[in-house]
Parts: sequence; C-alpha cells; structure tokens
Amino acid sequence: MQKGHLPQAITAWQHSLGKENVDSSGSALEAAGQATFSTLTSTYAIISPATTAEVQECVRIANQFKIPLYPISAGKNWGYGSKVAPEDAVLLSLKRMNRIVEFNKESAYITVEPGVTFADAHKFLEEQDSGLIAPSIGSVPEASLIGNAVERGIGKGQYGDRFQHACNMEIVLPTGECINTGFGHFAKAKSKNTYRWGVGPSLDGLFTQSNFGIVTKMTFWLLPKPGYFQSFFYRLNSENQLPGLIDALRTLRLEGTLTTTATISNDYRILAMKKQFPFARYSANNALPAEYVDEVRRKELGGAMWVGDDAILAATKQIGKARAKRVKKLLAPFVDKIIFFDDKRAGLFSALAAPIRWLTGINIKELLHFHYNSLYLGIPMFRQVAMCYFRKSKPAPEKMDLDDDKCGVIWVSPSVPFLGLEVTKTLHLLRLCYQEFGFEPNIGLNLMSERNIAFTAAIIYDREVPGHDAKAMACYEHMTKSLNAEGLIPYRLGIQSMKTGIMSDSEDYRQLLTRLKQTIDPNNILAPGRYGIGSILFSKANKLERAIAG
Amino acid sequence: MQKGHLPQAITAWQHSLGKENVDSSGSALEAAGQATFSTLTSTYAIISPATTAEVQECVRIANQFKIPLYPISAGKNWGYGSKVAPEDAVLLSLKRMNRIVEFNKESAYITVEPGVTFADAHKFLEEQDSGLIAPSIGSVPEASLIGNAVERGIGKGQYGDRFQHACNMEIVLPTGECINTGFGHFAKAKSKNTYRWGVGPSLDGLFTQSNFGIVTKMTFWLLPKPGYFQSFFYRLNSENQLPGLIDALRTLRLEGTLTTTATISNDYRILAMKKQFPFARYSANNALPAEYVDEVRRKELGGAMWVGDDAILAATKQIGKARAKRVKKLLAPFVDKIIFFDDKRAGLFSALAAPIRWLTGINIKELLHFHYNSLYLGIPMFRQVAMCYFRKSKPAPEKMDLDDDKCGVIWVSPSVPFLGLEVTKTLHLLRLCYQEFGFEPNIGLNLMSERNIAFTAAIIYDREVPGHDAKAMACYEHMTKSLNAEGLIPYRLGIQSMKTGIMSDSEDYRQLLTRLKQTIDPNNILAPGRYGIGSILFSKANKLERAIAG
Repeated sequence: MQKGHLPQAITAWQHSLGKENVDSSGSALEAAGQATFSTLTSTYAIISPATTAEVQECVRIANQFKIPLYPISAGKNWGYGSKVAPEDAVLLSLKRMNRIVEFNKESAYITVEPGVTFADAHKFLEEQDSGLIAPSIGSVPEASLIGNAVERGIGKGQYGDRFQHACNMEIVLPTGECINTGFGHFAKAKSKNTYRWGVGPSLDGLFTQSNFGIVTKMTFWLLPKPGYFQSFFYRLNSENQLPGLIDALRTLRLEGTLTTTATISNDYRILAMKKQFPFARYSANNALPAEYVDEVRRKELGGAMWVGDDAILAATKQIGKARAKRVKKLLAPFVDKIIFFDDKRAGLFSALAAPIRWLTGINIKELLHFHYNSLYLGIPMFRQVAMCYFRKSKPAPEKMDLDDDKCGVIWVSPSVPFLGLEVTKTLHLLRLCYQEFGFEPNIGLNLMSERNIAFTAAIIYDREVPGHDAKAMACYEHMTKSLNAEGLIPYRLGIQSMKTGIMSDSEDYRQLLTRLKQTIDPNNILAPGRYGIGSILFSKANKLERAIAG
Repeated sequence: MQKGHLPQAITAWQHSLGKENVDSSGSALEAAGQATFSTLTSTYAIISPATTAEVQECVRIANQFKIPLYPISAGKNWGYGSKVAPEDAVLLSLKRMNRIVEFNKESAYITVEPGVTFADAHKFLEEQDSGLIAPSIGSVPEASLIGNAVERGIGKGQYGDRFQHACNMEIVLPTGECINTGFGHFAKAKSKNTYRWGVGPSLDGLFTQSNFGIVTKMTFWLLPKPGYFQSFFYRLNSENQLPGLIDALRTLRLEGTLTTTATISNDYRILAMKKQFPFARYSANNALPAEYVDEVRRKELGGAMWVGDDAILAATKQIGKARAKRVKKLLAPFVDKIIFFDDKRAGLFSALAAPIRWLTGINIKELLHFHYNSLYLGIPMFRQVAMCYFRKSKPAPEKMDLDDDKCGVIWVSPSVPFLGLEVTKTLHLLRLCYQEFGFEPNIGLNLMSERNIAFTAAIIYDREVPGHDAKAMACYEHMTKSLNAEGLIPYRLGIQSMKTGIMSDSEDYRQLLTRLKQTIDPNNILAPGRYGIGSILFSKANKLERAIAG
C-alpha cells in the first residue's frame, strides 16, 4: 500500500461519510487491532458507511488513492482473526448497515444488511410472531448473519450450512459497481429471494471466503417452527464406540431421519465450558493432566468422554416419535446414555432433576435449559464461547469480548468425511499435536452435512501469559501442517494462514484465482491476501526468495 | 470465427485425436444440426476426444486457430437446442468420455465423465447392488448426468436439484489448463467428494449455464434406497383448488414432511403422453378444442384437470405412515382423489385394478406401473418424452429421437415462487399465449425446492408441417416476453434465447460477466454466445445498431 496517499484518502472519506464515521484515533485503532492471537498487520483507519451507495463511494476513493480496504460486518471472526486484516488495510466497518430490509412469512425468508446479528434476527422474528426459526450458531448472538455466511461458517440446526440456505447477494465490486446474484439482477424477478441459482452462471460462491466483493445485503431462508420438537442428548464414556456412533449418525443423516447440523463435544470442551483451569493444582505450562480430567468426568460429567446434542423437528408428534424411535435404535449400541425431551417430558423431568442426578449422574437441569433455550429452535442463548475463558484467571463475564479480554483462541477446522474411521484418525493426529505443545485437546465435531464433518479444534490459552502467544501459534502451525499432509484440509482459514498465498496443490488453480482477482480488482484494493488471493506479502516474499535463489 | 483457419485446425485435431474422431462429413454435420425447432447456426466439424488430456489438446488447437468450440455431453438438450450451438462452432462431443471414475458406497457418491448417462448410472448401481438410488429425470435415460447438472436441469426425487447434490468438478479452462473445484485441487484431500465448498471461493456455480469451462468429471451424491417407500398420486378435477393445493404442498416441503422434486401435470400434458392429436376431427392449425379435452378428461382421466405424482422415502414404515397421514390431512381439502401405494398395497390393488377403474375412473394399472418403476427410486423408465410426438402422424417409437423424428418442442421454463397465487397468475399468462398461437397448453409444475417451482411449459408441434416452425418460435418469443415483463424469469435458456446477449436488467452485471469471460477465455473460443456471454452475433448486432443510429 502507498501509505503516502492515506491522508488524502482520509479527507475524501470524511467528506463522503462525515467526520464522525472516519476514525483514526489511536485508541480505536488499537482496539481494532486486537485479536485472539498475535497479529502483525496494522489498521490505518476505520471507516463506517451506512448505505450501499456509501460503500460504493468508499471503494471508489480506495481505488483513487490505492488504499486497501478490509470489510468487516460485526467483527466477530473470533479465533480466525477478529477484526484484523491479513495484510495492512483500512477497516471498512459495516456495523451501521443493520437494517432488516425485507421479511416474507409465506416464503419464509429475511433479507438483511451486514450489521444484522443473530440476536437481531431472532428478536425481529419473535416480535413479528413469525412462527419461523432464526438462524443460529455456536458463537455469540452478536455475530453477523452475513459475516458468518460469507465465511461459510457452521451454524446449528437444519439450516446449519448457512451459505447453502441463502441467496440474492447484493455485492459492491472492488471497482465500485454494484451487482445482485441469482435472479436479483432482474428488477422485477419474483423468484429473487426464493430461488438460488438464477439464470446464467451462478456467482454466489465466488463471493464467499474471498476478496472479490463486499456483500451489502443477503437473503436468508428460515425454517418454520416444528409442530413437534424433541431435543436429545447422549454420551459416550469411552472412545471405543465413537467410530460406530459416527457411522450410525451418517446412516441417520443420509436416510433423512436426522436433518440437523448437530454437535458432538469432547470432555475437555465440556469441562472448559463449566470450569477454570485449576491453577492451584497444576502448572499452566502443560496441558491439564488426564487424571484431573478423569476425576471431573467421573464426578461431574457422569463419566462422559463425548457428549452429543441434537434435535428432531417434525410436523406431528407421530412423525417425531417414529423418528426418535429409529434414532434410539441405531444409536443405542454405541452410547452409554441417550435421553430425549419433548416439552411434556421436560416438564415431568424438571421435578425429578435432583433424584435423577443422584441415580444416573445426568445433570437434568442443565439439559432442560438446553431444551427450553434450544439453538435448534433459533434461540441464541448457548454460552459455548465461555470455554474461551478456561485459561483466564477469571471465568467468562456476562458480556464476553474475547479480543478485549485477551482470551487466546485459535481454531483449527479440518474438513473430514463422515466416517468413523476418518474421525478417529483425525482425533489421534490432533491429540499428538496438542500434547506436544501443552494445550488441552478441546474438540468439537460439527455434523455439517450427510457426508461431511467439520472439526472445530480449539487452541485455548491466555494471551496475558508471556510466551503463550508464540507457543499457541507454533501449535497451530504444526497441527495444520500435519493435517494437510494427511489430506485433512481446513474448511475455513484464519488470517494467519493466508500469508502463504492461495491454498492449493494446483498451479492452474492458483493462476485462475489470481487472474480473477486481477480482473475483478485491478488495483488490488479489497482485502489483499484474504484466502491468499492478491497477497502483497506473498508476492514480495516470492520475489525475495527468487532473488535469494537467483 | 475465422473460418479460413478451419482446414489447419481440422488437420491438427486429426493429428491429435486420430482421423476417426474428427468428422466433417455432410451427413454427420446435418444430423448434428437438427434440433427440435428451427436453428440457423452451422456446425463445422465434430471432434471427439476420449480423455481430459485430449480435451485440453483440442482447446489449445482451437485457441491457436481461433475456432469456436461447442461442447456437448450426450447431446440431449432437447427443447433447448439439442446439439446445436447458439453461434457457429465446431462441436466438441464428449460422448466417448463415458467412464464411471469412482464409486463410494459408504459416502454414497459416484464420479463420472460427461458421456455417462442416467441409464448407465442406474445400471452400474444395480449391478453393484449398491442400495443407492441413481439420479433421475423426466427426460430420456440416455441424457448425460453432467450435461443435466451443468445446465442446472430439473431432476426427480430427493436430489432433484441435480447441481445442489454434486461437487468436485474437473474443468478444462478455455485456455487449456485443468482445474478441480471444491477440495478437488488438493491432491490428497479426503473430503473432495463429500464436501461441496472447499476452502477459498467456491467456483462450481461459475461453470454452470455458462461458457467458462468444459466439465470433464463431476461427483454426484446418491440417496440410499429407503427402508419404506410409498408413491402417491392425486388429481384435481377443476383448477379452483389448485392455489390451495400449492400452498399446502409448500407447507409440507418447508416442514420437511415432503422432500422430493415432484411434478404436477395438466390435462393437456397427460393427454399428450397417451394419445395423438385427433387429426381426423380437428385442424392442426388450431389448438385442440376444450370440448375434446373435456371429453377425454371425463372418459379416460377420471375427470382430472391436474395430476400430481410424488413419493415418501422413509427409513421405517412407522415414519413413512406418519408422514403419509400428515400429507393426506393437508392435501385432502384440495384434491378430488389421492391414493398411496406401498409395495403391499400395490400387490393388493393389482388384483382389483379392473373393478376399481370401473368404480372410480382411476387407472390403477398405470399407477402401479409408476409405483414399481418409480423415478423416485432412480428407475429411468418413465416415458414422459413420448408427449413430444403428440402432433406427429405416428405415436412415439420405442427408441425416441426428437431431432431425427422432427418433433417440434420448445420449452418455456419460468421460475415461480411456491405460492398458489403466483402459480395461478403464471398459468393464466401462459394460456393466453398458447391460445393466441394455436398450440395446446402443455404444462408441468416442478416442485424444485421448498420455496420455488420451475414451470416447464412445452410448445409441441410437428416440424414437418410447413409454417409451424415459425409459428412456434413466435409463440415462444411472445410467451417469454410476457413472462419477463411480469418478473417470471426462465430458470434455463434455449439457444434461441441467447442471441440478445446476457440476460439481465443490470449493466454492472452484464459488464462483470463480460470481464470474466475476457479473462477466462481471451480468444472467445468456448461456446460464444452461450447464455449470451461472449456473443459474437450480439456484438456485431450492437455495432450495426450503433452504426445505424450514429
């Protein structure tokens, strides 16, 4: 970037957006530069347009002065880089664009701007008495729907593959034009929010996990609330049965008896959601020893090594019960406990919570809380993110901010076929890496589709402990390298992994993406280096290497 | 195209593929130039590579001599242009690439080349005793899986949106490089056939309904055969109840009780599948009069004005029965008859076919045939295409070839929201056009997704009747214009509709596609004018218009 032009660009943005929406104060830039791991890039300013026309204007100014922009929605890219860009840039914050643009009850969709969060969508749909389930995620409700979708993030529930259930993207191109995908570029098209592909090439995918455009509006499809809802929970007390369980779950997904993106979490993850690292007993320089985890497992988790949560959403009680029966039959051989709740059963169990706990070690109260506040019904309540405070000296506050609170979190997210054997192999590989670097193996399996699982392995640490930033990053790098060598490629990248250029084994593929970038963004002003595309660092490094080699 | 270079290109292709795989004989070119409506473009030669490397070689030669190529798979683009290119080109036939490259039973997918047909896939899966359902369509079994998917064609059954259930495309770019989408560009990626999006931008959509690359391999996901299968059929004896029926079906799709791309056909379509135009009674210059259709409806269709076929695929009988109960409850108020078959019921009914017919007017034998040979189970048997012979002097032969047999067929395929009111409005508009031009309103509603219906309205005529080619095309143009004016945009285009350039109301959108084409195919050698992109005719016409205007 030609930083020399920055002052002129700032002036132009101030003129265009108003001075109050261009921030280059030290405190703001410092806050924007905080992530959940160590980063090196600089934020030069934060500009905050409120409309699509203003975004176009921002982009035109960026082109005029050749200043890179990095767009963020709600900025909750936690564990993947937060608000920090992969390479130096001016932050384009879309938080002010927080309108719900359209809502259609019959066709069950909502069209929103990037600043609209999961919490906003849920609140709106409840206020409208819509009978529809808001999109939901495992992360905090303050995350952006569009931000999550364009990163192809993992959601919860039946529409858990967020991007699969969205359409009609409004996109400001890096050259300032504005397009709509699908049928959205036809002024009167009746199907623009109900049909994904449109006519001619379908461009939606191009604008996910890339730097080809700024998404300023998008339509999300919504699932009706079911006539009959059951949540269910199961646990495995050893790992021997996990491969069989995974294969049974695949059968249930493929045949359509189960339909949701559900989660299976390991003991370390459950423990981290409930407790703090026992600093009084053990050194934080090593991973929590197995003996302690065994103890907690026995005393507080009913012996659970893996815990699954899922749900059945059915039109009628009869359908729901029949599906539950099939689920029980196929999962029973592999689980130590499985328990189903509908609202009636939940009411009954509520009174019996204490004796059941005593008899079975199952914390019914907790499960009931998950049933009544189910993410599978779009209620954005689940505080999974609290686990990121596990190695902090204090537990998670009500209002969590991982960046400000200096929580260390790095996600490692390999994409793994939905096969018991592959899951086991991946776990083995991950655990070796965790062990080597002294972090807890905190692992979730996200049943993203009928054929594939997205792992979310978290490296959780305290950024305030000297040396741990570096150690965690070394662990991340080792893990990623080991996984890639086995063909376990991440489904999503953090900004730290984008510095080596476009991730591919194919020179033809890298060249195609580079050519696309050059055509779509000739001045390379949009998020250079995002997913390795248009990386300035990489091209410099390359030249340097070649110079040295030459 | 610079036709002067053609002889040199032919020589180069002959050298590369062998003389037997380069055909420029008059008879071959004439056959390749036949479509189901009048076309004007010329085919210069037919070249038939057998491998991806040979396709790359063909493309390099095309670039060297600046000769446009038009790739076809099985060439069954009937009603949309058959094997004919939108603009003059050499035909690149991929029929010889007919290998099933990979099959995985556990993860339920099959990877094929473009020459593999629906019939091939079905046969292979049965031979393997796979327990999996082959992809199916309403068209002939000799159509190509890849051809259908890259056109985003409508299938039947649970994976009816073919492109939605496919991944890992191998693509030869117009400049000769070869890429794989999704995780396919990682040599060892374990999820390349089980996860759609990969990492970084998702490019799959770019290579559908476009001319950005030649798809040489693709993976299709397969559904397991259900533990319990029911087919069901319903009919409406008037159209008053159709909007209510559509809305009830949308509810059933949204809530997940129904899961398939099913079809609802009107009386004229059913009639055309069963009979010939009664030339002895009526003039073929007009549409069949209502009195005749009423008579047939009364005497032979049990009074049906609309007929629906659908299926429930469930893991267990209990789930299936519970779903059927819900379907019956919601559809009953709107249908005159609805009948469900499982294999047991089908056996019972079989014996009673004759008395039932006498009592109710339902042709049980016919329905049982559909049950036992269900497209919803991937059995490619349904002879819907026979309707294209309705206005021919002889009925459809066993082996149908619409091109050779000079059947006139033009599809009009608007994309319509899954709403009763919108369906009714669209029908009204279509019928006015049919009436004006004297063709039968032959209409199918394809329940493509939870929120959207793809109409397939057919203009069926006899190409051998003088004047009807022109009249049918005029009808098509009038219909398309009327639909577009109401925002009912086609989900797919025939080659005749690509001559007006990229279909869009947005100049920014058209420019983006043009820029992409220029980058990906700088010599414009791949299917110029396909979906209006890189149209030579259009740019000439434009220049001409400008010259005249200037």
